[in-house]
Amino acid sequence: MKYLVHMDVNIPRDLPAEERSDLVAREKEYSQQLQREGKWPQIWRVVGQYANYSIFDVDSHDELHQLLQGLPLFPFIDIQVTPLAVHPSDVKA
Amino acid sequence: MKYLVHMDVNIPRDLPAEERSDLVAREKEYSQQLQREGKWPQIWRVVGQYANYSIFDVDSHDELHQLLQGLPLFPFIDIQVTPLAVHPSDVKA
Amino acid sequence: MKYLVHMDVNIPRDLPAEERSDLVAREKEYSQQLQREGKWPQIWRVVGQYANYSIFDVDSHDELHQLLQGLPLFPFIDIQVTPLAVHPSDVKA
Amino acid sequence: MKYLVHMDVNIPRDLPAEERSDLVAREKEYSQQLQREGKWPQIWRVVGQYANYSIFDVDSHDELHQLLQGLPLFPFIDIQVTPLAVHPSDVKA
Amino acid sequence: MKYLVHMDVNIPRDLPAEERSDLVAREKEYSQQLQREGKWPQIWRVVGQYANYSIFDVDSHDELHQLLQGLPLFPFIDIQVTPLAVHPSDVKA
Amino acid sequence: MKYLVHMDVNIPRDLPAEERSDLVAREKEYSQQLQREGKWPQIWRVVGQYANYSIFDVDSHDELHQLLQGLPLFPFIDIQVTPLAVHPSDVKA
Amino acid sequence: MKYLVHMDVNIPRDLPAEERSDLVAREKEYSQQLQREGKWPQIWRVVGQYANYSIFDVDSHDELHQLLQGLPLFPFIDIQVTPLAVHPSDVKA
Amino acid sequence: MKYLVHMDVNIPRDLPAEERSDLVAREKEYSQQLQREGKWPQIWRVVGQYANYSIFDVDSHDELHQLLQGLPLFPFIDIQVTPLAVHPSDVKA
Amino acid sequence: MKYLVHMDVNIPRDLPAEERSDLVAREKEYSQQLQREGKWPQIWRVVGQYANYSIFDVDSHDELHQLLQGLPLFPFIDIQVTPLAVHPSDVKA
Amino acid sequence: MKYLVHMDVNIPRDLPAEERSDLVAREKEYSQQLQREGKWPQIWRVVGQYANYSIFDVDSHDELHQLLQGLPLFPFIDIQVTPLAVHPSDVKA
Repeated sequence: MKYLVHMDVNIPRDLPAEERSDLVAREKEYSQQLQREGKWPQIWRVVGQYANYSIFDVDSHDELHQLLQGLPLFPFIDIQVTPLAVHPSDVKA
Repeated sequence: MKYLVHMDVNIPRDLPAEERSDLVAREKEYSQQLQREGKWPQIWRVVGQYANYSIFDVDSHDELHQLLQGLPLFPFIDIQVTPLAVHPSDVKA
Repeated sequence: MKYLVHMDVNIPRDLPAEERSDLVAREKEYSQQLQREGKWPQIWRVVGQYANYSIFDVDSHDELHQLLQGLPLFPFIDIQVTPLAVHPSDVKA
Repeated sequence: MKYLVHMDVNIPRDLPAEERSDLVAREKEYSQQLQREGKWPQIWRVVGQYANYSIFDVDSHDELHQLLQGLPLFPFIDIQVTPLAVHPSDVKA
Repeated sequence: MKYLVHMDVNIPRDLPAEERSDLVAREKEYSQQLQREGKWPQIWRVVGQYANYSIFDVDSHDELHQLLQGLPLFPFIDIQVTPLAVHPSDVKA
Repeated sequence: MKYLVHMDVNIPRDLPAEERSDLVAREKEYSQQLQREGKWPQIWRVVGQYANYSIFDVDSHDELHQLLQGLPLFPFIDIQVTPLAVHPSDVKA
Repeated sequence: MKYLVHMDVNIPRDLPAEERSDLVAREKEYSQQLQREGKWPQIWRVVGQYANYSIFDVDSHDELHQLLQGLPLFPFIDIQVTPLAVHPSDVKA
Repeated sequence: MKYLVHMDVNIPRDLPAEERSDLVAREKEYSQQLQREGKWPQIWRVVGQYANYSIFDVDSHDELHQLLQGLPLFPFIDIQVTPLAVHPSDVKA
Repeated sequence: MKYLVHMDVNIPRDLPAEERSDLVAREKEYSQQLQREGKWPQIWRVVGQYANYSIFDVDSHDELHQLLQGLPLFPFIDIQVTPLAVHPSDVKA
Repeated sequence: MKYLVHMDVNIPRDLPAEERSDLVAREKEYSQQLQREGKWPQIWRVVGQYANYSIFDVDSHDELHQLLQGLPLFPFIDIQVTPLAVHPSDVKA
């Protein structure tokens, strides 16, 4: 089941540099692990912003919430979720 | 080059039924042709709405505008375009 | 899987009275059938508006979209869908 | 009498960890007590957000305000309240 | 129980003049009847607009919805309802 | 002359507790004095929020601004003012 | 007493040309009469729009509403009113 | 050339009291100087807010920006500028 | 003096085809004449929309309003104007 | 390929003065270098704001994002990007 997820990241300036770089590194690792598992099949940078649009492919709302809540940067991300259905014109459906 | 495109469709009620079904059929054919050519690689239905989120993959803004303007339902679609860049965490990039 | 669905109904004034009452009657029947099947467990009227908030309980985004698209008044309803996960404080979860 | 309540939680980062975990624990206990009393019959997590949609069932606006104001996290929650009436299509009404 | 109600009136131009004046007259009579019964204790014109802010004083959401739905101009009014509680500084409370 | 006034209060967390309680006490006293003088005839709590809707009855914009600017909590209140005229259906007008 | 008034004019296309030009002429005459009386001391065109910002100087909300409601084009104007007080830095105050 | 300028002032709480009062005093002096020169012919307080609507009368966008940027409180003011043209109904034009 | 102008075009569907094509042709001619005169130095299509962003270079607000009001499609265009000043980093300034 | 870019700058007050002036100086140098290379052909100040509208002319979304992300003040700028296509009425196209 697909979801369009918009993530807008705002890391506080007063976060210690080391903590920040550690969080960013763990965020990348976490994201790439989910990408490899097929649960986060696509991620794009929104041009000019510290933000992304992503496609998630999971079995339930609960699973998606667990994955998003587990993001190392979760406390600093404003997340909007849009459920996506199969489109009747989709040639791959 | 990728773009996230949101299309919100509002076909006027007073459009003759035949014209409407003809436009919708041509819209589907047009979309599927572009999907097969790889220029419109993804399309999803927004749940509960006569709307879609799509990914377009084209060479330029001008090409994208020509493709969108050519949609048979173009006069009845409110379109929003977001340019997407490669994300540094994308495992496929 | 639960979804909060907001429906804002705007039936055009120029719809013939008979067609209108027929649609409204079929809408009610359709809704009550889904309520009895457990797919539309709750529906409330938004005070002062021809609108409702509803809870849907279905297996997938696709199923929800099919149900909503099947509403007899669908062309006249503005629908917003919010996916709901289990809350960690829910005593019934 | 039913109300749809949306709560968006923003706990300040500089709240001492102990105070935070204490507040969160008391919030959970407070919520579950009201759920058991039937005054807060439903609560769902908004997917991807530290937010919930809830149904409250109380006798008056004053009672609802007292309950909400008593939330241990009240100073950190943005709350929106929508009064709900019985829907004429509700099979349980 | 008090509610702040905002009503924004938009009567379609193509409503026959007689029907319009009849509806407006019935609306006034309906409002004044509810004012005399104490259910609609206050009504003010929003300066420069065909709109009003009103205070309703009723026993339940359901009663309020019935009263509002009964407005002769209801199909042409956009209504927003805000539930009001007693304020702790109110000298009359 | 009547005005609908919406006040949304946000007292900074880092205000010393004593200063805060002193301000809140003075705010209450100030409000009740104006209520008794008939200049602030009504005040209601917005359910679920540290906010109120109030009716002010004063002789001029300047008088209203002086009264609002004198609120002990003024620096922490977001205020919106709507001028109200007599409604032609008002049975008391 | 001063008010900033924003008027956004939308005359329906299907208004007969003669009725339109008659209304526009009467609107101009009405406005200029109020300007000469000092009740509408200033009026400016918003660049690029069929809209204006105006200053009204009247004795009460009721007077302002009567003046605005009397505009020949009133049914086709979206009006927003902001009450203005004397500014403490105003050299003319 | 006229511009409608809206200024919304938010002086940070942690600005030292002396610096604040000095800035406010200089702001007043700066404004009154421009008023006397005819470049800032009108200024009104928005009722209930630390905000003003002003009319500026200058020769160019660049001149207006220089004047606004020179406001002692400029870093703490959110400014919106609307260019105003002569209105065809203006009796003074 | 430069202005950023956003034009969003909505030609009514019921405009006779001939009148529409005539207006569109005259709009193009009008625009190109102003471009050649240097008053409308730049115009871009907003991708996916019947809209444009343009730069105008004129001597006054009044001149700009006259030019915009003279657009053959003016009644069908929603126009937003932003005044632009020289940027201190502009290498051409 | 052209993009309209809106940058709204908010440098935190608590940034050390030297760091601030250094960043601002490097921002200017960075911008002017890109202007000279033809990648940032136009930049205008939004009147009354610490903001600019700019035209970028680059080969791809990725190139634009790299350029914007490289802005010395990037962490303090809210950036909105609009892709621009050739307009059919453009005399220079």
